[in-house]
Amino acid sequence: MDRILLGHGSGGRMMHDLIRDYFAPAFEIKTLDDAAVINTSEFNSKLITPNSEPFRLAFTTDSYVVDPIFFPGGDIGSLAVNGTVNDLCMVGATPLFITASLIIEEGFELNDLKKILSSMRDAAKNGGVRIVAGDTKVVNRGKADKIFINTSGVGILDDNVNISGSKAKIGDKIILSGTIGNHGIAVMSQREGFVFNPPVLSDTRPLTRLCSDMLSFTKEIHSMRDPTRGGLATTLKEIASASGVGILIHENLIPIDSSVRGACDILGFDPMYVANEGILTVFVKADIAEALLDVMRKNPYAKDAVIIGEATGAQKGTVLLQTAIGGKRIVDMLSGEQLPRIC
Amino acid sequence: MDRILLGHGSGGRMMHDLIRDYFAPAFEIKTLDDAAVINTSEFNSKLITPNSEPFRLAFTTDSYVVDPIFFPGGDIGSLAVNGTVNDLCMVGATPLFITASLIIEEGFELNDLKKILSSMRDAAKNGGVRIVAGDTKVVNRGKADKIFINTSGVGILDDNVNISGSKAKIGDKIILSGTIGNHGIAVMSQREGFVFNPPVLSDTRPLTRLCSDMLSFTKEIHSMRDPTRGGLATTLKEIASASGVGILIHENLIPIDSSVRGACDILGFDPMYVANEGILTVFVKADIAEALLDVMRKNPYAKDAVIIGEATGAQKGTVLLQTAIGGKRIVDMLSGEQLPRIC
Repeated sequence: MDRILLGHGSGGRMMHDLIRDYFAPAFEIKTLDDAAVINTSEFNSKLITPNSEPFRLAFTTDSYVVDPIFFPGGDIGSLAVNGTVNDLCMVGATPLFITASLIIEEGFELNDLKKILSSMRDAAKNGGVRIVAGDTKVVNRGKADKIFINTSGVGILDDNVNISGSKAKIGDKIILSGTIGNHGIAVMSQREGFVFNPPVLSDTRPLTRLCSDMLSFTKEIHSMRDPTRGGLATTLKEIASASGVGILIHENLIPIDSSVRGACDILGFDPMYVANEGILTVFVKADIAEALLDVMRKNPYAKDAVIIGEATGAQKGTVLLQTAIGGKRIVDMLSGEQLPRIC
Repeated sequence: MDRILLGHGSGGRMMHDLIRDYFAPAFEIKTLDDAAVINTSEFNSKLITPNSEPFRLAFTTDSYVVDPIFFPGGDIGSLAVNGTVNDLCMVGATPLFITASLIIEEGFELNDLKKILSSMRDAAKNGGVRIVAGDTKVVNRGKADKIFINTSGVGILDDNVNISGSKAKIGDKIILSGTIGNHGIAVMSQREGFVFNPPVLSDTRPLTRLCSDMLSFTKEIHSMRDPTRGGLATTLKEIASASGVGILIHENLIPIDSSVRGACDILGFDPMYVANEGILTVFVKADIAEALLDVMRKNPYAKDAVIIGEATGAQKGTVLLQTAIGGKRIVDMLSGEQLPRIC
């Protein structure tokens, strides 16, 4: 292996290997969480007065290369804002600010740019963030595909919040906030010209309010993650590995829209590996799981929330799926690439 | 005009129009400064205790699409780190953290990736920042040109620092920290296969220490800017417009390496519009200009620093160049595109 393959961008096994072998030695990236959390006391600056109460900020970055740029339920603009807002939410931060940087191909239609910027503005408003800095680069025709958008974000954390993919505990219940596969199938159907009835819409949306409701109810959330690239399967496998727990989930509890299920059947996709955007999975102490579920279901973005399984002490690092017909199978990370350029 | 043209990415007039007509209505971008400055009191979060002393943070973002990705004196990795570090420095911030997001074309050589990451790591160390979060996307062959890198940065500001392109004052002296045109000519020579003797090297480098020395000496710096895309001419015109002052500079005082001058003569470029990376221009009260210059010249990155002119009360918003042969000409922003993909 001496060249970058599409699979390196899949969010799955190859990407993890790339991060471990190439990025980790070069950068100070300590966890695979969606955002880095840094205490202001680490700023090591004489500009913060010593008697100032320190607090924690979260930083995250993501570039969006989704193809096509307009798809049922959203576009690259709303996706770029929501995705970064949600990455901040997943470490328990309240999103504050984002920056936006666009790489545009020469010849791109200004009307499309206007639509995308307007959709970014709306998404920022919905997500509770301000877009405070921007940048635009233009490359010659054929040197980029229409438009790529980077958003980077900053959020602030409550003192009592301590959420990480590495903090799931044995006995935790696992809640999933909504149906899986919608974003991936929506983008793919638009790209390939498939028409589903009813149409499958992307679930791109900000999880700011949902997470704020959840954290108002309890600070005892251990792990939280939005299963984007690599799908629910990859996300659960990451948490099992990072936390050193086993995970058991029940196939017949995982909510999937019938149209998404139908599309996956026809196209040979496993919905467990299809990308999502506007859902989250949360690991929480068993004795408050039902009450948290009630809180979540009051939010329209989590009305389908359900407990899908638990973290166990058996087979640490392994995700087991109890299938609908009663068997058990091991769920691994996505290997290779299922749907390139899904976000 | 209904499509994006290369000139929209030039840093010049077309980009300013694009920002004014498209980005400003959608985003909360209040100034054209290199970074947004936000007081923590604006965070409007109950998570910061009321008795916590507020402080100011700077946020910035830039995507780098330079072609070729390796050039004399640097590569896209060092450029991406230095560029964002310097954007933070230009508002007087001490750079703290950056994020890095890569868009890579399928088939890109892993050896080249390794070189670039290593050069980012070194640049971060030199610039005094930590790379705390990252992201990688891969697009199909032919859908991006090798590799694009976004870096976004966070810095912290001293209470007494108040620097903006809109704060230049009549009577200010204008100091330029080094020779102009080196980066643009270095990239262009590599791209086109020209060989200059002596070779022209990019001046990509972090200005963290230089700016820290300057701000230790005085907080009375009014405007500071690194003249990147659009060159020195565009930067000065931006400051003249934003501050409502006239600017008079003296052609024979502007330092240019003889090899850069020769290359510009042969190729028909005006060095005033060629991109730089590792120099800055600073507007400071006349009575401390000479002393600041002495401070700057002690730093190896500013050994060629020189006063090139002053802000005047005449012809506000206009930049006048006193030419070597005694005439005066008006200097406008770059119009159209001189050298695409220079950063």
